[in-house]
Amino acid sequence: MGLNNDSNQWHNQVQTAFPIPNKTKYEFKSIGIIHTAFEQATGTPIQPKSEQASLGSITLNPAYLAGLTDLEGFSHIILLYVFDRIRNPQLVVKPFLGDREHGIFATRAPARPNPIGISIVRLLSVTDNLISFSGADMLNNTPLLDIKPYVPSFDQHSIDRIGWLEERVNRLSDTCDDGRFLED
Amino acid sequence: MGLNNDSNQWHNQVQTAFPIPNKTKYEFKSIGIIHTAFEQATGTPIQPKSEQASLGSITLNPAYLAGLTDLEGFSHIILLYVFDRIRNPQLVVKPFLGDREHGIFATRAPARPNPIGISIVRLLSVTDNLISFSGADMLNNTPLLDIKPYVPSFDQHSIDRIGWLEERVNRLSDTCDDGRFLED
Repeated sequence: MGLNNDSNQWHNQVQTAFPIPNKTKYEFKSIGIIHTAFEQATGTPIQPKSEQASLGSITLNPAYLAGLTDLEGFSHIILLYVFDRIRNPQLVVKPFLGDREHGIFATRAPARPNPIGISIVRLLSVTDNLISFSGADMLNNTPLLDIKPYVPSFDQHSIDRIGWLEERVNRLSDTCDDGRFLED
Repeated sequence: MGLNNDSNQWHNQVQTAFPIPNKTKYEFKSIGIIHTAFEQATGTPIQPKSEQASLGSITLNPAYLAGLTDLEGFSHIILLYVFDRIRNPQLVVKPFLGDREHGIFATRAPARPNPIGISIVRLLSVTDNLISFSGADMLNNTPLLDIKPYVPSFDQHSIDRIGWLEERVNRLSDTCDDGRFLED
């Protein structure tokens, strides 16, 4: 793929000009597994807000158990996870809510250069290393990367505009994944 | 470190019971570099909201340029990046806003098992592969993993409670990074 060669070349050029990090690749590990009712992309909610009652659970790797201390005080948590069934990242996509193509960074579509998903979900319970939540919008057996507390003072911003989504976001509750990003 | 051995053992045990992914490690690549005025942790804002005027810019690797199409329609964007100067992840931390220890997943502290940061920032301009924003709260030369549009219908949730932060979050504007997570 040309992307990688261009990418290295660019990195070397910029590095000559600025002291940017040598490293361009970073390895992360699954800290747990997210279980949901969704075995395939088609029919899966596209956002937690589109199906808030949808239940999910996490089996955290017990090695990280101490990290859950005091999590239960928060009503909402941010899950970071891997879109691990994406094979072909795309730079331009027609997103679920769209009727035309947009740059991948102007969408929340999963076929991203780094396939990392974010979902803000309602925390229901934490029992040892088992976490229950509602607002599940990821596939069953999704690898979990991180859990962060959702804090309105950090995470709620007054926006001026939401671009192409302005006229499409009202379709959220009527729109499901249709499998378009898992085709080969 | 014991963590990795325990971790593999756990993965094999769970895998015997459920069909979870074989893979536990995922490699992501820097898609660009975030430039800010903050050369060291001490004094760096701990959240975009604590220093909203703080300017930052991104040099996106030009290989991903097409992905920026239509991004400029959004007033706010979500940046995902690597806390690349963290050497020692901790499961229990005393966070910047706290006066006692909490599980890392109940905090936004950078010393996480997977050191991935999230900042919601105000988009100022997109010119070719150069992006300007305000709300910079990351160190200079931070590797960028992803850009997503910030969409209130997806990202704003009515919360019931924010745990230990309830009595501490009012200190946000008076609190800076003090370097505590970069000590060896």
